[in-house]
Amino acid sequence: VGVAVNGELYTALAEMEELLETESVLITNLEGYIRVQEDKLSLLKNKMDEYQREHADAASDITAYVSNPINAYLLTKRLTTDWRQVENLMEHDVGTDFLQNLTQYRNVLKFPSDEDLNGAAVALLRLQDTYQLDTSSVARGKLNGIQYSTEMSSDDCFELGRQSYVNNDYHHTVLWMNEAMSRMLEEPLNQTQTFTRADVLEYLAFSTYKEGNVESALVMTNELLQLLPNHERANGNKRFYEKEIAHQKEMKKMKGDD
Amino acid sequence: VGVAVNGELYTALAEMEELLETESVLITNLEGYIRVQEDKLSLLKNKMDEYQREHADAASDITAYVSNPINAYLLTKRLTTDWRQVENLMEHDVGTDFLQNLTQYRNVLKFPSDEDLNGAAVALLRLQDTYQLDTSSVARGKLNGIQYSTEMSSDDCFELGRQSYVNNDYHHTVLWMNEAMSRMLEEPLNQTQTFTRADVLEYLAFSTYKEGNVESALVMTNELLQLLPNHERANGNKRFYEKEIAHQKEMKKMKGDD
Repeated sequence: VGVAVNGELYTALAEMEELLETESVLITNLEGYIRVQEDKLSLLKNKMDEYQREHADAASDITAYVSNPINAYLLTKRLTTDWRQVENLMEHDVGTDFLQNLTQYRNVLKFPSDEDLNGAAVALLRLQDTYQLDTSSVARGKLNGIQYSTEMSSDDCFELGRQSYVNNDYHHTVLWMNEAMSRMLEEPLNQTQTFTRADVLEYLAFSTYKEGNVESALVMTNELLQLLPNHERANGNKRFYEKEIAHQKEMKKMKGDD
Repeated sequence: VGVAVNGELYTALAEMEELLETESVLITNLEGYIRVQEDKLSLLKNKMDEYQREHADAASDITAYVSNPINAYLLTKRLTTDWRQVENLMEHDVGTDFLQNLTQYRNVLKFPSDEDLNGAAVALLRLQDTYQLDTSSVARGKLNGIQYSTEMSSDDCFELGRQSYVNNDYHHTVLWMNEAMSRMLEEPLNQTQTFTRADVLEYLAFSTYKEGNVESALVMTNELLQLLPNHERANGNKRFYEKEIAHQKEMKKMKGDD
């Protein structure tokens, strides 16, 4: 946003548009994959319903059921020709074509690299600093009260924190890990969360220490250890922070002694 | 039903009860397979919905979308870390355990053989003959007006016809293939039909010829050839039936000349 000169900006925009095209192809392929899997499951569910209905009938009076020649024929057929059909359907991997597409796409479509992701994160954090935007507004996609983009998920915030951490930018790590934590609590139904509360606490504690607040770092580390008492690195950090705090007290006392 | 002596009957019943146990295990395994596949699909569908929603937003004004640093970050993230997660989920074959069970079951559970199926079919047809039951009543599971078992599907009837054919029992082949045909027309939503109208016509034509009605056999073969004009065996049979009819006419004429 005003950082790149015009030529660079246009290149960046053109690249972004290419990424949107990639996304469109991936979505179509995912739709196809889901569709064939659903069709297969719907056939199997029909078969299962049939089997369950008939089996419940049989279970209600087994002797009467099996001594009836029609049932005897139907049961034998269910476990021979019919069951072979069900097995074939179960074993038939209907998604293969769509999975093969995935491999092909890697060669022919434009995908962003991990460096591109880092660059996009840095550009966003630069914007945040330039306009002094508070973290939760950016996360809500609101800039100066205007809805500027979709809301970020806890995972989007976590990744911003992780990218900051990788860049040794502990200030933004703390801001975005805190945001990830509070958003996480608002997403109780999120089934694809890629991180845990413990992960956030570990990033937060270390970055808080790096930002100079060792007492807070110790509090967070203790909280993490309540979740995972055997977390090796956290136990090491706890001893380290405790030693640091003792050392700082010692220094203060010595200063007081001056 | 009165055919086997008591000892044999009990053995047969005990075996049938074992088959019901096999069926119960197969149903439970199929339920498990369907459940894990549905869970996987539900995760993928949530992801797809997210992608579609965001992508539709982008498509409505591409330049505005991609020149927004929040969107640029989110798009880049969707195509790096997020997409890797989707790909992993797509490629993860969640049903493996249940498919492995299928192989194991073949070794440890009692399954009926193809001979058992033939035996069960013959026993049912013997019952039909003994009590002179009409085919459509048996197919409806009704014996002497009493609902005696579940209704048979067109496929159950087709298989009875096929088993009769294998036993050179053309009388029952004709009865049950006709029943399969009429039930087939009542099951327009059947997605797992294992046979076609052409299959039934072929069995019917040949068995009708074997039963002595070559004119009907020719009519059915012509009907089959309307569906599949290049059906090799049917074309051969057509020539053969036509020759037979000509030959019979010749014989009649010669008799008339006497």
